[in-house]
Amino acid sequence: MTQPPPNLRRHDGTVLRADRERLLRQRGAVVWFTGLSGSGKSTVARAVEQLLTDQGHLVYVLDGDNIRHGLCRDLGFGAADRTENIRRIGHVAALFADAGIITLTAFISPFRTDRQQVRDIVGPDFVEVHVDAPLAVCEGRDPKGLYQKARAGQIPDFTGISSPYEPPEQPELRLRTGEQTLAESAAAVRDHLFARGVLTVSASKS
Amino acid sequence: MTQPPPNLRRHDGTVLRADRERLLRQRGAVVWFTGLSGSGKSTVARAVEQLLTDQGHLVYVLDGDNIRHGLCRDLGFGAADRTENIRRIGHVAALFADAGIITLTAFISPFRTDRQQVRDIVGPDFVEVHVDAPLAVCEGRDPKGLYQKARAGQIPDFTGISSPYEPPEQPELRLRTGEQTLAESAAAVRDHLFARGVLTVSASKS
Repeated sequence: MTQPPPNLRRHDGTVLRADRERLLRQRGAVVWFTGLSGSGKSTVARAVEQLLTDQGHLVYVLDGDNIRHGLCRDLGFGAADRTENIRRIGHVAALFADAGIITLTAFISPFRTDRQQVRDIVGPDFVEVHVDAPLAVCEGRDPKGLYQKARAGQIPDFTGISSPYEPPEQPELRLRTGEQTLAESAAAVRDHLFARGVLTVSASKS
Repeated sequence: MTQPPPNLRRHDGTVLRADRERLLRQRGAVVWFTGLSGSGKSTVARAVEQLLTDQGHLVYVLDGDNIRHGLCRDLGFGAADRTENIRRIGHVAALFADAGIITLTAFISPFRTDRQQVRDIVGPDFVEVHVDAPLAVCEGRDPKGLYQKARAGQIPDFTGISSPYEPPEQPELRLRTGEQTLAESAAAVRDHLFARGVLTVSASKS
């Protein structure tokens, strides 16, 4: 980006999304990873982030670490607050995509209506990825010991145990993280983004 | 960005802010324009956006148009909601800066405590710019007829008329938009960002 592309057009003083995308040599998108706790959402998102960044793309991950302690720190885990949490994340992700960034989000987001709301907010650049591992696999991993606590009744409304997970009916992509390797999952996301035109030849083949 | 910089380092699978900044050849920052309605916040922000984009930088503007109808559509204009509005924008701006983007915000943000809260959220990359035009000048412009309505008592809590504006005491930059031209104001912001190291020589001098 030392020199701006020569075809960076002016529009009466307004910079357009297309200008940013031309500068970045990619298209903005929201890749929405949904799945049970322990299914591998964050792990896959971080692997995709690394893979695409190594190819010169600008990628950003929104997850509990940078959302729940900041923008959504006023929200709890009841039904209404979970919906509001996903609504806000959807709007932030849409802004990031508008900035031209490949935005990866990693949230359980168990309810179809909440995810549909985000799809409506983001528009055609929304890519729903179901990180689909069986509950038994997720519970067996239990990296934070949350399933154990949930089974003991210490966590109310825990997705998969005491609160439902509504799997996507027609996700853009489904990853079987109980069977695939992490590298295979990440490559599947990359290939899908390439097929959609989010990643361009010039940047990805370098 | 056809080829990733050769010194893009790996950190055990974690992409860092510094990696994104190296890719973009700039540093992330939040340039927070504050001032009365009609002072020129959005106009200056858009001029800076155009100036820096033409130099190959990735810039994004957050303003009422893309925030009030989306992320903050549930908020009104009472004191508590205005504070919550600014808090959310502060967190979103901090995420954008973490992504490596030069983030420009254009909101009246009349209260010192609200702006201080954003400064605390964003940290050292917060650049407060007071868009400082006398009330008489702003009221004379009155591009949306809001001052006229406020004087007629049709808009409650209108900043400068029926609600106070608390000017920054030590802003990083003050723009006298009643005296300077738009080009001078935009250049002053660019020069300040250059002096702070947000803009690097390689990208800016191209």
